Amino acid sequence: MTTMLNWLTKRAELSPTQDAVVLKDGTTYSFEQLKNHAKHMAKYLMDLGVSQGDHVAVIAKNSYRFLITVHALNYVGAVSFLINTRLTNQEIDFQLKDGQVKYLLFDENLKQQISELDHQGIQLTNIHQCPLEVADISQVEDEINLNNKSHILYTSGTTGEPKGVQLTYNNHWWSANASLLNLGLYAYDRWLLSLPMFHVGGLSIVYRSVIYGIPIHLHETFDVEAIHHDLTERNVTIVSVVTVMLEQLLERLGEERYPDHFRCMLLGGGPAPKGLLEQAKEKAVPVYQSYGMTETASQFCTLDNANALTKIGSAGKPLFTNQLKIVHNETELPPHEVGEIVVKGPTVTMGYYKRDDENDKTLQNGWLKTGDLGYFDDEGFLYVVDRRKDLVISGGENVYPAEIESVLKSHPKVKDAGVVGQSDDKWGQVPVAFIVPKSSIDFVELEEFCSSQLAKYKVPKGWHKIDVLPRNASKKLLRHQLVKQLGE
Amino acid sequence: MTTMLNWLTKRAELSPTQDAVVLKDGTTYSFEQLKNHAKHMAKYLMDLGVSQGDHVAVIAKNSYRFLITVHALNYVGAVSFLINTRLTNQEIDFQLKDGQVKYLLFDENLKQQISELDHQGIQLTNIHQCPLEVADISQVEDEINLNNKSHILYTSGTTGEPKGVQLTYNNHWWSANASLLNLGLYAYDRWLLSLPMFHVGGLSIVYRSVIYGIPIHLHETFDVEAIHHDLTERNVTIVSVVTVMLEQLLERLGEERYPDHFRCMLLGGGPAPKGLLEQAKEKAVPVYQSYGMTETASQFCTLDNANALTKIGSAGKPLFTNQLKIVHNETELPPHEVGEIVVKGPTVTMGYYKRDDENDKTLQNGWLKTGDLGYFDDEGFLYVVDRRKDLVISGGENVYPAEIESVLKSHPKVKDAGVVGQSDDKWGQVPVAFIVPKSSIDFVELEEFCSSQLAKYKVPKGWHKIDVLPRNASKKLLRHQLVKQLGE
Repeated sequence: MTTMLNWLTKRAELSPTQDAVVLKDGTTYSFEQLKNHAKHMAKYLMDLGVSQGDHVAVIAKNSYRFLITVHALNYVGAVSFLINTRLTNQEIDFQLKDGQVKYLLFDENLKQQISELDHQGIQLTNIHQCPLEVADISQVEDEINLNNKSHILYTSGTTGEPKGVQLTYNNHWWSANASLLNLGLYAYDRWLLSLPMFHVGGLSIVYRSVIYGIPIHLHETFDVEAIHHDLTERNVTIVSVVTVMLEQLLERLGEERYPDHFRCMLLGGGPAPKGLLEQAKEKAVPVYQSYGMTETASQFCTLDNANALTKIGSAGKPLFTNQLKIVHNETELPPHEVGEIVVKGPTVTMGYYKRDDENDKTLQNGWLKTGDLGYFDDEGFLYVVDRRKDLVISGGENVYPAEIESVLKSHPKVKDAGVVGQSDDKWGQVPVAFIVPKSSIDFVELEEFCSSQLAKYKVPKGWHKIDVLPRNASKKLLRHQLVKQLGE
Repeated sequence: MTTMLNWLTKRAELSPTQDAVVLKDGTTYSFEQLKNHAKHMAKYLMDLGVSQGDHVAVIAKNSYRFLITVHALNYVGAVSFLINTRLTNQEIDFQLKDGQVKYLLFDENLKQQISELDHQGIQLTNIHQCPLEVADISQVEDEINLNNKSHILYTSGTTGEPKGVQLTYNNHWWSANASLLNLGLYAYDRWLLSLPMFHVGGLSIVYRSVIYGIPIHLHETFDVEAIHHDLTERNVTIVSVVTVMLEQLLERLGEERYPDHFRCMLLGGGPAPKGLLEQAKEKAVPVYQSYGMTETASQFCTLDNANALTKIGSAGKPLFTNQLKIVHNETELPPHEVGEIVVKGPTVTMGYYKRDDENDKTLQNGWLKTGDLGYFDDEGFLYVVDRRKDLVISGGENVYPAEIESVLKSHPKVKDAGVVGQSDDKWGQVPVAFIVPKSSIDFVELEEFCSSQLAKYKVPKGWHKIDVLPRNASKKLLRHQLVKQLGE
């Protein structure tokens, strides 16, 4: 199958009056309303000149307008660049240029930041200025081609240079269906979305909602009180979280219990500490650990709740449509041997935008080399040992040491720099830096320097002076030795 | 996506110990056991010479062996012809020849019937003779190509000559996924299968079971007492039925109620009488009416329980992946106007086997002209007015008048013959014949003649003598005028 009806159009046909979105203040929109609003936005964008295949960036925090925009760009057939609002202007400028973006849609509240971007040759549009009624929306195309690109989402790599992961409608479609075959679908399901929609973890919920016909409880930020309220008072059945959110929610839960219909706390963004999972079990919170990445359009493996404690640290098994093998030197390894995680399936990206060399290296016959290390146990449960070797996951955000090192090394007083992750009670991990100075050096100055070029969560939270960095014969930095020096 | 792991292999990986099959006597097999048994059967067939792409017929009534055989043929990569056991030898011989069948697998109990077939050049195998252990099954292929043909299932047409509907793995895969998006999937689901697996309605449950990871309660026949027992005592949540089965189940239910977790009585095979639906509602039985056919790999539209009584007579809306339009003279009609039902979607057949002319006429740009008549109401609910104009549905079996007429007209004493459906309290409809005799005629003789060539359910249950049949200018039989004569 290559074409089908736009999912929101189809859902509005099937379930017009069903709740599609519930906002924090209780405002509710039906699928029929959501569809009409999205089509009005699409018409508005088409009138501005946006056409099928155009590269369009969106910079917005979670909101109903952002949600409409995501669907509107699908109606137009544009390729959407959903940009992390926490990035610095410099990081955003890189994406706009690298992605050959023609239009930039932005949230009212981010007006100031947008004005400071290098947006030459890019048409700017405030998504709050589009009227959501009156226009003739009959021309808006209702059929989608599943093979078309829907998004390019940037992720930094081990090389330090961000790359645009290309995702198609097919990737999203199969991600929604594969997740469904694992988690099931109950008539009364409601999925709480507080993860940012510019990350694939949040975006995937947008599509699940319309494909499954269930409401999103849309939160602008992670407000633990508001989320607790929705879980306990508003019949939410599923919520996607990262470790730091799980921790806060459990703390807020205290001696209370979630209602019986709450059935899934889907945990992404790196393995959770054992103590936390035990705490969840004590409180009867059904945690599902998962493994996934932008390149697989969100979760690829999930550990069901039944095995949450017997298989602590495991990310479960590959979802129904997915295949996974552990490889070393081109050879598939038996259980318990650690190798590179290599994945295949209909949710796997077609490749990075304009990175043919990288794609040739990482994508072969539909198999993607993730760069992550892991092993299977005897029963086929996956254990992820190391995320892309050096990846630091801080509060659910991916932090690539190489990217920070490259900024540090550009400072005139820095001779060499190494960055690793350090355990952190609140964020899971935070980046810390080891600096080989050229001359006397002030870490406050270095911190300010980083802040001017890197998103806040990437700025090192700890600083260490060192005479020489541990490197191997081919000068590759041995980050594990730095980790050891932290006493971890 | 063109390849994926064989669904049973994948399911056994994900849920090895989960119940896959529960038989009437309580015997239970897990997915791991079912997979191993199916692979042993596959190995046995491969050793007999059966290869990928071979045409293999199966003649069997529902049983665990038949179920294993269905999966085994998928492992081999053969194209399966699942043959209606109620057909006469003459009808089966037609399929074997038309379908260029090389192997015929049969059930022990049908040995006698098989020996009377014209099986020259066809290798016969008793499916009970295959050992289900010991062999080395490691060579059995685990990957399937979704575009490959899995089945050719025969259905008679308005022309009277049976045609083989070609179905692919893709058709089954999407059918399972589309149904899921409508009915949902609960962790405790159990689907009762008493429809014959040689019909697409039964076969589709075989695949749903492995794709969803839920058990089939496999019944050899429709035994109302045994089914009632499974629904009330064995936690079955879903059962597929045709009208005559629904009627008997409701009668057996009497003043009892099904347990709360019983959530879906999926009703196929023609619209149900209003009185019956009202009775179901009184007894709180959740009936879902549907519309589908072999050509769409089972249900294409389904009416959810919420609308079962407000939309009486409707078959609901096209499932999520499906599109449907009402057409007359190449033009799409507005609501409330009756036209031909034309369907598109990933469950639609690639066409009839070796019937290029028919395929050119009925399949255009992915749209299949069903020959059925219907209309939409204002809210997009489908009403099927007439199944393929003249189709008679008797106890869930399709009966094509043209096929019976062609047999009748071959009798030396018959000058002309017309067949139509008559309402029947037990079977919904039964075929009745109008005969223009050449000479004095004995209906008992004609009935015996039909019985020798047609399955029992196709033999007319009423006989009428007539001087001349009503035909239009181009000599097309006006069956509606015959129906009028029956006073319906």
